[in-house]
Amino acid sequence: MLRKTWREKYEEGIREKGTLLTVGLDPTIESMPKEFWGEGGVLDYLKVVVDLTHENAIAYKLNSAFYEVMGEEGIRTILDIKRYINSKDSSILTILDGKRGDIAHTAEAYAKSIYEKGGFDSTTVNPYMGWDAITPFYRWEGRLTIVLVRSSNPSGDELQMWGEPPLYKHLCKMIVERDDRYDLGAVVGATHPKELQVVREILGRKRAILVPGVGAQGGNAEAVLRAGEGILLINVSRGVLHGWKDDEWPTGVARAAERYAMKMKVDQVERFM
Amino acid sequence: MLRKTWREKYEEGIREKGTLLTVGLDPTIESMPKEFWGEGGVLDYLKVVVDLTHENAIAYKLNSAFYEVMGEEGIRTILDIKRYINSKDSSILTILDGKRGDIAHTAEAYAKSIYEKGGFDSTTVNPYMGWDAITPFYRWEGRLTIVLVRSSNPSGDELQMWGEPPLYKHLCKMIVERDDRYDLGAVVGATHPKELQVVREILGRKRAILVPGVGAQGGNAEAVLRAGEGILLINVSRGVLHGWKDDEWPTGVARAAERYAMKMKVDQVERFM
Repeated sequence: MLRKTWREKYEEGIREKGTLLTVGLDPTIESMPKEFWGEGGVLDYLKVVVDLTHENAIAYKLNSAFYEVMGEEGIRTILDIKRYINSKDSSILTILDGKRGDIAHTAEAYAKSIYEKGGFDSTTVNPYMGWDAITPFYRWEGRLTIVLVRSSNPSGDELQMWGEPPLYKHLCKMIVERDDRYDLGAVVGATHPKELQVVREILGRKRAILVPGVGAQGGNAEAVLRAGEGILLINVSRGVLHGWKDDEWPTGVARAAERYAMKMKVDQVERFM
Repeated sequence: MLRKTWREKYEEGIREKGTLLTVGLDPTIESMPKEFWGEGGVLDYLKVVVDLTHENAIAYKLNSAFYEVMGEEGIRTILDIKRYINSKDSSILTILDGKRGDIAHTAEAYAKSIYEKGGFDSTTVNPYMGWDAITPFYRWEGRLTIVLVRSSNPSGDELQMWGEPPLYKHLCKMIVERDDRYDLGAVVGATHPKELQVVREILGRKRAILVPGVGAQGGNAEAVLRAGEGILLINVSRGVLHGWKDDEWPTGVARAAERYAMKMKVDQVERFM
């Protein structure tokens, strides 16, 4: 059986679910009820989260840091939860958010680890080393390699806005020049709706933009929907995972996902394809 | 017992060994004799490499990619070989080359994973997200957080040379403004001796510069020694690990390390402190 491309999964997802919500599976002690704090608890916890959110999400994004910090168990958990997600819903997108960036020889090892061994549909990459660092990922046709362009954190400006035109625009032009398959995308923080619009104009509608920063980081979903029309994935991590805290476990997580899915509701799917 | 700072270890190392050689422990199938290709073989292979090189090296640098690609075994191997290195030589520097960079919340998880759980003396970080992404590492006093400034790969120019003054210089100035403990360093590829000199001038002699790219990537050790005077770590990975190929296993590795240690020989240690 041929593996579905990221684009096929995305299109299926928004047609079926009518939302752009991507849930960030970033397990931390604070995000988990105490009953999951023991050995093996993280996986059990994530399974419950997936059970309660997958009908309202078109993608899951796993930030590698929160798994690495658990050592071996973390690495095992990445693979286990990835398999679990796909057993629930074979066409939901899985993104490993690792922001890797290294020389070609090394980037190949990262790409192999994420796309081949991990079987992820997508990953994020850091562009600081230039095209060399991106090619080993880009080589994987049908996978979505998302370049970190404009980050949601306060000091993101320091390098990303350097020069004239600013670095992030220069980077977007590089992406367009080199990607003729539309398999590259961009990360743009929700806290920068103006620049999201600029990035969208340069990349066109057919390239994916992943927008983190809605929820805990203060980004506004409505502004993102307006500025980002085209292939769009909007990520919420803490906003969903901590959803049980002012509510109850586990239904509070389901309700939070539902609320965010509504905020990112897509009435005319063509606008986001 | 108080943990030694990275600087104490560095100073001990060059006084005792009289070289700046840092050995890159990047295990790949091609670097290992066939007898090590089975389960658990990587660790055994690395132990032999450490046995035969540690008297000629002041530091070991482990590039995370080559371990991650092995999954759980890789993560276990990072910790096991780190412990093995320190059992052989408690003051040799250990650098986890991960080039991580993410928003503060996430970078904290990476820093914890590398400095606390891993117990490494040093790590490399990617600056594309700005100061936010560096602070969680920098907070660890006595550890050396090395910022990727100027990489050795051909397309490194694309972002690093952007703007006027070029981005990498702007970044060096940021480092100097913010680091009053001299615990930040810079990665500068051996293929850029001219820019190595510029970075050294901005950072001063007391900040560490890690120079990869000697050996397989074509950088010249002599030029690096001239341009980089001050705290300096010169990394060779494939040049040492593949040393047995035109020679014999395992003595070829020992001989390669010896040759590189000689090329990076320090006669007047004060010039590199």
